[in-house]
Amino acid sequence: MGYLTDKKVAVIGAAGMIGSNMAQDLLSTGTANQIALYDPFAAGLEGVAEEIYHCAFPGARVTWTTNEAEALAGASYIISSGGAPRREGMTREDLLRGNCEIAKGLGEAIKQNAPGAELVIIIFNPADITGLTTLVHSGLSPGCVTTLAALDSTRLQTRLGQHFGVLQHEVTGCATYGGHGEKMAVFRGGIAVQGAKLTDLLAGGTVNGRGLSADEWAKIQSDTRNGGSRIIQLRGRSSFQSPSHQSIAMLQGRIRNGGYPWPCGCYFSSGEFAHVMMAADTEFTAAGLVGSIPEGTAEDLADLRDSYTHLCKLRDEVIAAGILPPIAEWGTLNPHL
Amino acid sequence: MGYLTDKKVAVIGAAGMIGSNMAQDLLSTGTANQIALYDPFAAGLEGVAEEIYHCAFPGARVTWTTNEAEALAGASYIISSGGAPRREGMTREDLLRGNCEIAKGLGEAIKQNAPGAELVIIIFNPADITGLTTLVHSGLSPGCVTTLAALDSTRLQTRLGQHFGVLQHEVTGCATYGGHGEKMAVFRGGIAVQGAKLTDLLAGGTVNGRGLSADEWAKIQSDTRNGGSRIIQLRGRSSFQSPSHQSIAMLQGRIRNGGYPWPCGCYFSSGEFAHVMMAADTEFTAAGLVGSIPEGTAEDLADLRDSYTHLCKLRDEVIAAGILPPIAEWGTLNPHL
Repeated sequence: MGYLTDKKVAVIGAAGMIGSNMAQDLLSTGTANQIALYDPFAAGLEGVAEEIYHCAFPGARVTWTTNEAEALAGASYIISSGGAPRREGMTREDLLRGNCEIAKGLGEAIKQNAPGAELVIIIFNPADITGLTTLVHSGLSPGCVTTLAALDSTRLQTRLGQHFGVLQHEVTGCATYGGHGEKMAVFRGGIAVQGAKLTDLLAGGTVNGRGLSADEWAKIQSDTRNGGSRIIQLRGRSSFQSPSHQSIAMLQGRIRNGGYPWPCGCYFSSGEFAHVMMAADTEFTAAGLVGSIPEGTAEDLADLRDSYTHLCKLRDEVIAAGILPPIAEWGTLNPHL
Repeated sequence: MGYLTDKKVAVIGAAGMIGSNMAQDLLSTGTANQIALYDPFAAGLEGVAEEIYHCAFPGARVTWTTNEAEALAGASYIISSGGAPRREGMTREDLLRGNCEIAKGLGEAIKQNAPGAELVIIIFNPADITGLTTLVHSGLSPGCVTTLAALDSTRLQTRLGQHFGVLQHEVTGCATYGGHGEKMAVFRGGIAVQGAKLTDLLAGGTVNGRGLSADEWAKIQSDTRNGGSRIIQLRGRSSFQSPSHQSIAMLQGRIRNGGYPWPCGCYFSSGEFAHVMMAADTEFTAAGLVGSIPEGTAEDLADLRDSYTHLCKLRDEVIAAGILPPIAEWGTLNPHL
């Protein structure tokens, strides 16, 4: 069996549901065969490694370790779902601070052990901010650090497909930008259902005999925002299959230098949306990830500015907590910024 | 994205960990895109379906239903992990009887709704007997019903690779036959480590400077038998990634008419090993699965006869419980037997 790459992939948080699913997906999709699994939880990690060994992937070289430096050493690709989940009694701020501390540690460990990393994908929440924190501390160029940002867009595509009773892939151009969560910017501009523009459908057009009222569209946007919590309600556990699958698809995009269709987390050094990491239009190239500000209606762009403002606020909380230095000092930690 | 088949695949037990992993693997590996998910547990099933939708597989047509007949209707391929797990206070006999009742129901539902099924793969335990029960009641030919039997072999390969410090795929010819569990027959005959025969290694040969004492070999066989419970100890949950992956690999073997390298569950109509389903050497052909009795040392074959005797005993318990008729009457339920 051939694999897309034989470069080393480090999976951080590999004892968890997302991490273990990624290990399997990397191999079963033929993406990568050199995989280092890291997690501080040794027993669970060994259990995951044994599961992967029992799959008997031809040509696989899968190792596991509770030593993060060892897992990262010489890795070309790093994917981390290794944050702490939100626990009862924990405030949003506790989660933000705790996971940004983890992201800082990861960034520092990357700087020391994997300075040649070509792509780092951050999955743990709040990913926009943990991704930014990892970037600043890693010393890598912005084109080499990103966050998983696709799921809001795929959830929007799912709900529109269900609303109109069409196949999901017949809904095109779904994209949400900016931050993840309450303040995501759901863009109307580029969406079409079986070729019919969403803006026309909102103005009275139909597909399959179904229209789309303003209330229905508001409900779909709200369902999109709550897509993750709906999974927890239904399944009794957080979403893990779709984050895993889309992260590996991003990595494939990086290895192939293109072809990944969804927004990714992207850092802008200058311009209106500078100094945060946020979901944007992105292209994987041989030089790394290249982002651009999405086009949309005036309303879409107003939503994006709102979302950006919210991200700046979160970033400033992390700066106030001392986990990131003030923006003006980022260059001392990372010469690319 | 192209898929190996656009025929319908029914995944039975799709709300569970194995079932949901199979749904993802079917799509991510490009095996099949028409997938019907069935489970009696509606909320969990919808949660799984939503996860799969959020993966946004191009060209996927994934439906979910709590109506088994609807899921099976016209399915070409059926994979079931939909048995009940062993619960506290339950005897082995309780589990056997309960899951064989489920297998009987599945067989009858297949007879009614999917008489043209090309391959049914049974995963739930004790799979040898639930697979046999499904076969008898389904009315399908023996070449169209099989059980997952690879994991004992891949666990043996894993342990030998670990013992000799070689890559797992450098251990070739690993196969266990007969029943799954305590009474599996671990064949020594065909195994080689980096080309060195296991029988020679047991006689004093070395690979990588390591030999294999009789005690070490006994320990490896015991680890192989306990590979599943070891996963539970380490991970706090039953193995689900490897059963899922190997089941989809079997299906790929059926669709491609060959290329699946591990033993599969196989029914023999006549000969020394008749009237049970057991792990054997198998080949996927355009006409279905074709099994043959494996070759091995005298000791290997003695182990296989032991394992067969044990399977006959389990089968006779199911007959005594009235879930299967006496062997002489199987032909009235299934003209192929």
